[in-house]
Amino acid sequence: MKCPGCWKMLTVAMCMALVACLQAQELQGHVSVILLGATGDLAKKYLWQGLFQLYLDEVGKGCSFSFHGAALTSTKQGQEFITKVLESLSCPEDMVPRRCAELRGQFQQLSQYRRLRTNEDYMALSKDIEAQLEHKGLREAGRVFYFSVPPFAYADIARSINSSCRPGPGAWLRVVLEKPFGHDHLSAQQLATELGSFFQEEEMYRVDHYLGKQAVAQILPFRDQNRKALDGLWNRHHVERVEIIMKETVDAGGRTSFYEEYGVIRDVLQNHLTEVLTLVAMELPYNVSSSEAVLQHKLQAFRALRGLQKGSAVLGQYQAYGEQVRREQQKPDSFHSLTPTFAGILVHVDNLRWEGVPFFLMSGKAMDERVGYVRILFRNQAYCAQNEKRWVADQSQCLPRQIVFYIGHGELGSPAVLVSRNLFRPSLPSESWKEVEGRPGLHLFGRPLSDYYAYSPVREQDAYSVLMSHIFHGRKDSFITTENLLASWVFWTPLLDSLAHEVPRLYPGGAESGHLLDFEFRGTQLRFSRQQLEQLVPGPGSAPKPSDFQVLRAKYRESPLISAWPEELIAKLADDIEATAVRAVRRFGEFHLALSGGSSPVPLLQQLATRHYGFPWAHTHLWLVDERCVPLRDPESNFQGLQAHLLQHVRVPHYNVHPMPVHLHQRLCAEEDRGAQMYASEISALVTNSSFDLVLLGMGTDGHTASLFPQSPAGLEGTQPVVLTRSPSKPHQRMSLSLPLINRARKVAVLVMGRLKREITMLVSRVGHEPKKWPISGVLPSSGQLVWYMDYEAFLG
Amino acid sequence: MKCPGCWKMLTVAMCMALVACLQAQELQGHVSVILLGATGDLAKKYLWQGLFQLYLDEVGKGCSFSFHGAALTSTKQGQEFITKVLESLSCPEDMVPRRCAELRGQFQQLSQYRRLRTNEDYMALSKDIEAQLEHKGLREAGRVFYFSVPPFAYADIARSINSSCRPGPGAWLRVVLEKPFGHDHLSAQQLATELGSFFQEEEMYRVDHYLGKQAVAQILPFRDQNRKALDGLWNRHHVERVEIIMKETVDAGGRTSFYEEYGVIRDVLQNHLTEVLTLVAMELPYNVSSSEAVLQHKLQAFRALRGLQKGSAVLGQYQAYGEQVRREQQKPDSFHSLTPTFAGILVHVDNLRWEGVPFFLMSGKAMDERVGYVRILFRNQAYCAQNEKRWVADQSQCLPRQIVFYIGHGELGSPAVLVSRNLFRPSLPSESWKEVEGRPGLHLFGRPLSDYYAYSPVREQDAYSVLMSHIFHGRKDSFITTENLLASWVFWTPLLDSLAHEVPRLYPGGAESGHLLDFEFRGTQLRFSRQQLEQLVPGPGSAPKPSDFQVLRAKYRESPLISAWPEELIAKLADDIEATAVRAVRRFGEFHLALSGGSSPVPLLQQLATRHYGFPWAHTHLWLVDERCVPLRDPESNFQGLQAHLLQHVRVPHYNVHPMPVHLHQRLCAEEDRGAQMYASEISALVTNSSFDLVLLGMGTDGHTASLFPQSPAGLEGTQPVVLTRSPSKPHQRMSLSLPLINRARKVAVLVMGRLKREITMLVSRVGHEPKKWPISGVLPSSGQLVWYMDYEAFLG
Repeated sequence: MKCPGCWKMLTVAMCMALVACLQAQELQGHVSVILLGATGDLAKKYLWQGLFQLYLDEVGKGCSFSFHGAALTSTKQGQEFITKVLESLSCPEDMVPRRCAELRGQFQQLSQYRRLRTNEDYMALSKDIEAQLEHKGLREAGRVFYFSVPPFAYADIARSINSSCRPGPGAWLRVVLEKPFGHDHLSAQQLATELGSFFQEEEMYRVDHYLGKQAVAQILPFRDQNRKALDGLWNRHHVERVEIIMKETVDAGGRTSFYEEYGVIRDVLQNHLTEVLTLVAMELPYNVSSSEAVLQHKLQAFRALRGLQKGSAVLGQYQAYGEQVRREQQKPDSFHSLTPTFAGILVHVDNLRWEGVPFFLMSGKAMDERVGYVRILFRNQAYCAQNEKRWVADQSQCLPRQIVFYIGHGELGSPAVLVSRNLFRPSLPSESWKEVEGRPGLHLFGRPLSDYYAYSPVREQDAYSVLMSHIFHGRKDSFITTENLLASWVFWTPLLDSLAHEVPRLYPGGAESGHLLDFEFRGTQLRFSRQQLEQLVPGPGSAPKPSDFQVLRAKYRESPLISAWPEELIAKLADDIEATAVRAVRRFGEFHLALSGGSSPVPLLQQLATRHYGFPWAHTHLWLVDERCVPLRDPESNFQGLQAHLLQHVRVPHYNVHPMPVHLHQRLCAEEDRGAQMYASEISALVTNSSFDLVLLGMGTDGHTASLFPQSPAGLEGTQPVVLTRSPSKPHQRMSLSLPLINRARKVAVLVMGRLKREITMLVSRVGHEPKKWPISGVLPSSGQLVWYMDYEAFLG
Repeated sequence: MKCPGCWKMLTVAMCMALVACLQAQELQGHVSVILLGATGDLAKKYLWQGLFQLYLDEVGKGCSFSFHGAALTSTKQGQEFITKVLESLSCPEDMVPRRCAELRGQFQQLSQYRRLRTNEDYMALSKDIEAQLEHKGLREAGRVFYFSVPPFAYADIARSINSSCRPGPGAWLRVVLEKPFGHDHLSAQQLATELGSFFQEEEMYRVDHYLGKQAVAQILPFRDQNRKALDGLWNRHHVERVEIIMKETVDAGGRTSFYEEYGVIRDVLQNHLTEVLTLVAMELPYNVSSSEAVLQHKLQAFRALRGLQKGSAVLGQYQAYGEQVRREQQKPDSFHSLTPTFAGILVHVDNLRWEGVPFFLMSGKAMDERVGYVRILFRNQAYCAQNEKRWVADQSQCLPRQIVFYIGHGELGSPAVLVSRNLFRPSLPSESWKEVEGRPGLHLFGRPLSDYYAYSPVREQDAYSVLMSHIFHGRKDSFITTENLLASWVFWTPLLDSLAHEVPRLYPGGAESGHLLDFEFRGTQLRFSRQQLEQLVPGPGSAPKPSDFQVLRAKYRESPLISAWPEELIAKLADDIEATAVRAVRRFGEFHLALSGGSSPVPLLQQLATRHYGFPWAHTHLWLVDERCVPLRDPESNFQGLQAHLLQHVRVPHYNVHPMPVHLHQRLCAEEDRGAQMYASEISALVTNSSFDLVLLGMGTDGHTASLFPQSPAGLEGTQPVVLTRSPSKPHQRMSLSLPLINRARKVAVLVMGRLKREITMLVSRVGHEPKKWPISGVLPSSGQLVWYMDYEAFLG
């Protein structure tokens, strides 16, 4: 099979394939495709058609083919199945029927079924291929093994291929794997390690069929070809939000045994929607056709993703699901599934390009419509001087501006790329994308179709046909590498773990769900927009709820005590701190606040950062009560917590922030570095009388406060204002304000929260002034005020 | 005139008035109103009616009145004018005609004209009032002087009132002033000082009639009465934008002599729209009916306004204006007015509540419609899971959510308060506001009227009637205090100065203006959305344009020189810095960048802050090349510039930022504080070999660089890495890296921009190594690279 004079027609991609063939033999070479699971659903529905399409595309271009359908079924049954499937294969619309019949005949001749069960079967297959090659005088180009089998069968098949069915020297091996690729990070890693013992990374092609969808495959080329227009737009200054959506109308009926184990996040979000996310969010490589560059940029995007927390997700389950599971899996009536069939996720990409832009990922079964899309909505930064009646769609910057990669289905009914006409006229490859014809009355994303430059594929292609071609041409950027896969699981696994026992909201399904599944964010927290009615009706004698309590005022160790439920306590403390700050700034022009580290103050810092608009931050000096002897950028550093939860959000001038100098001259808390003395001088230079306006302390279960631990040789008394101490827990080395310095403050607030503090709270309420035993008992401002803030759990137990 | 038993009916506000009367005499007292300019347009159109309304409101409530129309006109003419005006006065719709006629008759009897020209006239008036009081046995409550006269007449009248027409002891004086209150900050201050020499602050009532508009007057009460719903919403986390708009269809024809001097910013924005801005933006006082609290919160809002720059505004002028001015003012054909009749302004409120929220202020004459409104649009933070067809207006959080104070006119035709139904049901005082009836087909702000809770006043009131009542009741919060006025001028004057020679965009007016006046922002810069076609067609030999040039590469002092137009030069330098940073971080894990102060680097910092998404800020250390010996927070401080233009926008960890310690122990650059030595140690501790990865320098017109000036005794040679120096210009004291330290850098970039540098550039190109004379000539990295970046003006002149 020669290909004389066809060079000019070859595109770059085809060249790559040809090179694969050429490596085997001048303009000649044979490719064997072995479809494992050839009698399964996926094969019947997509894969055989995909292989036929590959044959149609490649026939006469230099390579010869043979197609081996394989399964565990007997040869007779398998061959019958395949014969039937092959008869129903279809050609592109523009092919004349005679030509179609001719090519289908050829394809049928090249295709046969064989049973593959044992290692010997694989050996036999390999021998047969070799014999055939010899017989026809062909050199081998390579072999494709397409795994359309359940994951538990992977290892055995992989072992057999590796040991007994690799192609001869100089020819390539490509194994194509279908999801699921694990259930979480650990299982995915195990599977990857196992496969890695049989195959090289470059031999593996993990399919995410979304990457074969034409609109998805167009994202990077679109970004590349419209670089100039997008350069200034594709960032947080201009993008208001990104929506990555896959809605299905079908439910999981008939598939619950699979679905019950996976759920919507593993089924759709961890793979399809995440891939789309990285294509939108990644920095655009200089050369978008370099698989390696794309992979590296994808991995970089993964690293920029902010970790998901429970509050990043809302979950739903369509009402009929539970019954379907019980029926299909013979579960008792008492069985209630927690598997989500709907999920909305808020993703943040923490880099300069995307910081603050919400990425909504959403997928669900039993929705009101079947549709998939990525929508990039741009901010409206314009004011339009004329009455809105006079706004013209392609001129007014006040009408929505958006770019949509319409993956398929929905009201449009085909893949498309939409760009608002008031944005720019996009450039798309005219050989493969054409402008969509007018569809009067059709509205998409708030605007009539005519408001968009809208393009659809010249020839609609099934994702599997696209992917078969990419496998053949070795285009690895359409597949999931091991690194990519594991990066995605690293991202999703903590969320999946934290949601494991979450009860999803029930929804009726279809249009009846109404606004029940709408969700919205506040800060980083996602929640359903409609509050659900409380389903628990507490009987008499039920536990009191927070709203039953007011803030309680009492005395503790002869000082004022304020007690409340945690949320109210934090709110009260934040209010008090602000009031103190405002008074101090009014009187002295500045406010000196010394903050403790640890986890208790985190909600307080968040409260101050996001709710206290009137806080005089510009006149506030922030000091540390204590610090761990770790580099300031260490996650364990108290300062790092202050930076993450407060400093990032408010404008405290750089020179008003005073981290403890625990890390001088490259050594941590070395005595000879005199860091404690330096901090003391800084305090003495800036804080009048070294008397802080407010010191916030905590109390440990051992009665320690600041980093002053029981029996500490320093800091409990004496003249050193700042001391180095040792903690019984890691990291042992600490720097701390001393008790005498703390007691010079105008005001000291001690925040104690949580049930674990109950015991020490009781104990300390009874002891006298015994700072050696219980350092907290030594807190007694000489002329200032001491106030205790305890939540009910710490105070009442 | 007694008021027996009417106590219960009195509202708090009325009580205040009554107290005013009571101070004069038990339940009795006389108020004289003197309307100066009683025969003018404003008086005819609004003021007499306002006084009549006041009379209608107050008659029988304890005070008696007399109304004195005054002007320069002869008594006969004046009386005739007034008689005519009084006959046309109207009563509220719900008053029976007989009662109306009766009250109008009474009012006419109490009103008379008198000529007031000389001081003697004022004395006579005062005597007449006193005689009348004595004659009727009344005690005097107070006198109102309403200045409806041009500002040039203020001083004389004020002097006469003060010297010859003050009320007797125990009675109050209120002088009511109409704008313009000056032309800029200086003239406003002069006028205020002058008036202040005659009147107490509490005696002056400066009218901004917008504060009498019912929808405007409702802003604070609305915020107060809906505190609970608004508390979480009225901030940058939820508000997307605020629009404060006043559009007029009329033009300035017939008034150009006034208009030509003022223009739209002084006429509308400095007063009306600014007042509205403060009502929306201010922190809500605990007690919104306390004039003093409202004033203080307003002033606080003024302090938070970010200064306006030329780029904060877009200006327009309707096309017919020029001809109108030439005609009305007999100007030659060659006269071209620059007075704007349209302005769009972008205002930012730099506090925690509003940071980043754009406030659009816009006003124009000859627009397509007459309308005024304040619109607060909230962010869409929701994703709605159903197809948009199924969104229900009062439930979907994805439909626009907005609150509009509709000041008047427009399609609604009356004042209103609109709140989107998907937001909350607002609380409004039912005695004065009622729900608007349905108006099918009416769309406002993108949604049908039925999507809003919409309220309009039960009784529409003219602004002047409202204000007359407030004057009488001493409600000063509806008037502009001197402090308020001057704060507004402080805000607007720099913009007005910078725009003085700006050419406004011409617009045809009305609907024909199309999208010509639409504007949008990028960062803090406002610009028209539609680029105007360049009207200058350069002939042959015309000056080259930036696009004609490429970046030029050459040699300067034997080192590489890069030259370009400013914008491209900055872009190129920023790219080079990023590339250097990325390389350094890749090799060493960190990047040490030393930056010079001054104004040249500002656009560079902005470029780096907003366009370089891939910059490894988290691994970058920022050092100062030099610093002025001023506190770090001083606007003159180099560090302050770095903070404002770079640090605020990117995430450099606190501990990677290294300001020069010019301010230790409360003294600036004291030798004994050893700040220079400290900085040197810090460099030596953190920067390998004290060799910065990149040092950015500038060059002064005297050949200085860093803060190393010609003949400097320190820093040009020797072993001290950081030195204290003296600058010939203020502030004289400086701290600077020394030449030897600079020359240890791996790379040194010298940025030279602007025509003023041309001469020194020429000179330095020819001199040898003479750092004593020209410090810049001593820059020669020992093993690093030196690159010059010069714009064409500096390099080619």
